[in-house]
Amino acid sequence: MKGNVIYGQSGGPSSVINSSALGVIKEAFNNPDDIGEVFMMHHGIIGAINDDLIKLSKDEEKELDKLSHTPGAFFGNVRYKLQDYSSNRKDYLSILSTLKKHDIHYFFYNGGNDSMDTCDKINRYLIQAGYPCKVIGIPKTIDNDLECTDHTPGYGTSAKFIANAMEEIDLDNASYPQGRVIICEIMGRHAGWLTASAGLASLSGYGPDLIYVPEVPFDMDKFFIDVKRIYQKKKRCLIAVSEGIVDSYGSFIFQVGKKLDSFGHARLGGVGQVLCNNVNDELGITALPVEFSFLQRACCRISSAQDQKEAEEIGREAVKLSIKGVSGKMICIKRLSDKPYKYELTTADLNACANYEKKMPLDMIDVEHSFVTQKFIDYALPLINGEVENRFEDGLLRVPHIKGYNC
Amino acid sequence: MKGNVIYGQSGGPSSVINSSALGVIKEAFNNPDDIGEVFMMHHGIIGAINDDLIKLSKDEEKELDKLSHTPGAFFGNVRYKLQDYSSNRKDYLSILSTLKKHDIHYFFYNGGNDSMDTCDKINRYLIQAGYPCKVIGIPKTIDNDLECTDHTPGYGTSAKFIANAMEEIDLDNASYPQGRVIICEIMGRHAGWLTASAGLASLSGYGPDLIYVPEVPFDMDKFFIDVKRIYQKKKRCLIAVSEGIVDSYGSFIFQVGKKLDSFGHARLGGVGQVLCNNVNDELGITALPVEFSFLQRACCRISSAQDQKEAEEIGREAVKLSIKGVSGKMICIKRLSDKPYKYELTTADLNACANYEKKMPLDMIDVEHSFVTQKFIDYALPLINGEVENRFEDGLLRVPHIKGYNC
Repeated sequence: MKGNVIYGQSGGPSSVINSSALGVIKEAFNNPDDIGEVFMMHHGIIGAINDDLIKLSKDEEKELDKLSHTPGAFFGNVRYKLQDYSSNRKDYLSILSTLKKHDIHYFFYNGGNDSMDTCDKINRYLIQAGYPCKVIGIPKTIDNDLECTDHTPGYGTSAKFIANAMEEIDLDNASYPQGRVIICEIMGRHAGWLTASAGLASLSGYGPDLIYVPEVPFDMDKFFIDVKRIYQKKKRCLIAVSEGIVDSYGSFIFQVGKKLDSFGHARLGGVGQVLCNNVNDELGITALPVEFSFLQRACCRISSAQDQKEAEEIGREAVKLSIKGVSGKMICIKRLSDKPYKYELTTADLNACANYEKKMPLDMIDVEHSFVTQKFIDYALPLINGEVENRFEDGLLRVPHIKGYNC
Repeated sequence: MKGNVIYGQSGGPSSVINSSALGVIKEAFNNPDDIGEVFMMHHGIIGAINDDLIKLSKDEEKELDKLSHTPGAFFGNVRYKLQDYSSNRKDYLSILSTLKKHDIHYFFYNGGNDSMDTCDKINRYLIQAGYPCKVIGIPKTIDNDLECTDHTPGYGTSAKFIANAMEEIDLDNASYPQGRVIICEIMGRHAGWLTASAGLASLSGYGPDLIYVPEVPFDMDKFFIDVKRIYQKKKRCLIAVSEGIVDSYGSFIFQVGKKLDSFGHARLGGVGQVLCNNVNDELGITALPVEFSFLQRACCRISSAQDQKEAEEIGREAVKLSIKGVSGKMICIKRLSDKPYKYELTTADLNACANYEKKMPLDMIDVEHSFVTQKFIDYALPLINGEVENRFEDGLLRVPHIKGYNC
């Protein structure tokens, strides 16, 4: 069935979500017998609801190629919880109206577990409404917490940023006769995959001394003992900590770990600041917090070529399968081996991927709960591999400028 | 006169100080008629005072090549104010003893304006003591605030990091239907060169809306008006601010700009946090601070090939000139043209470079005091140009491991 394509981006940006967009766009342009026009939702599902679309032209293919190294969600993302059909018919009718108006019969949605829930709901609605449309989910999240897939596009590049940043910071700190305790706070409220990637730096001979993830309880007293021991021995100490680490009761350390200042007020700040304050007070050692903030998810200047390649392949695969009649699925990566790294693309039902959070297995975390195991290194190392060339012009990342959209 | 070489690193690290070290080392190895052994001071002048040296071997040249993409000050830096000879004879006698013991007649010191002061003092002392030794200063600072040179090695790479980081953050922020006010705090207590480099991002079509440097007074009321106007128009606002911006009385904003919280206590944080708190309170808009912290000076993963090349050339030039008998000088870069970018290496007297801080000229700052001018762009753009290849192995920066030193 010939029809037009719609594609949307959803949830927090990753460094390679636009590579998946590029895969969809290129494969759609490559299949003129099946696909006519290519539309992007402006700000994800809100764009479909409001008929706010960006129509792409094959004439702009050269400009669109720059998507492979463009940070952010270039066509606009959104965090919007699509209600059940019974609670909010209006959204579904608006989406259907947009699809009909533009003769769209291929629907691709690129995001994490919440976005797969949106995608699943739309698929079930369209079947019920009798509107012929292939619906496929394209995975994306730097957090790597999606079920059904070995890993998610976006994770490899953020992991590479974090591993190299930890190496850089440790070498900087090692310059001084007396270094510092430096505590790097890394994204991940419930899953430690990103923070764990700091451990890859150890292959360089530098990197973090201690790594704390939310999957296992954080012990403040043991933390003090470890920091003191390492600092006395090395004259420096580098720590990677997930924003969402918890104590043995499951309470967030950034909430319960705070000591009061001399006026009896709780100090402000995330877990990095909280731990630094505690190290200063308890051990009398100056500790400095570092937050990677937006840089850890917008780090196109240090993309993993492997990650970018997989992101684009998955976008292409979504289009290929939809043309073959597949629908209601998310594209998944199945790992075949670590060394050499081999994988194949598969699919899973959208409702099997939606809403679940995949955490790190305990055999990737060391028994002391303060580092990663070799099993994690073997898992993560292939995902940060390879450099992307020709991204810069005059020393700056160059991104697409599309007529009528951003220029 | 044949003799051995000593080289030391001093002050805060930069991303290319180890490229200057590599230049010295390679050029020294290349001149066996004039130079015998090559010694590195362990932690700068303290290493010379304590006879704590690292002797390098030509056999390790391949490993040493990795210095070109190694962050930090690989041989150890130091912040040590060498007193005048009249105040502390002991240090000078210790240095002389080390030089004599190891038959050293070539002395190279790599750092900023304080380090050039150290270098100048040692040069004058050795002349007075009648010890034959060529003494040459090698410039380095990410702050770009050294006199006598068009720019300093280290600035280009940090400027490239900042420009690309600002572009990445703006694209991330642009993803959302409603973006945020994001305030990036950048190093530079007295000179705005680094913060100004954020303006280079504008060539990509993205980047900061407002840039504030310490050379001109910061006006809080005008700041609120500008942020409000930009946020209303663009639904996002990105700001680059030097840590050392001051008000019209010359007082640091991070000290005087703080509002009291509802309990009457001054809030903590640097200027980024202070401005965010004020935007939240005054405009009712959520503002988030970002600090680039160590990443802005240890960013070897995004080195400017031009900066790295110049850093190595300057190290080589120091050795070449010293063999020709030059002493008491710092190597300088003289710009011949912006487009195409051309330069030559010259020298200046050490005492002309020592201790002074070069600030941005006012014609590089716009009349509104909230952005840079085209003159700054033309000045800085050539310095961030070119990519460095082959720095990674399995996705990680690979750094030297020298027997008896760090392995």
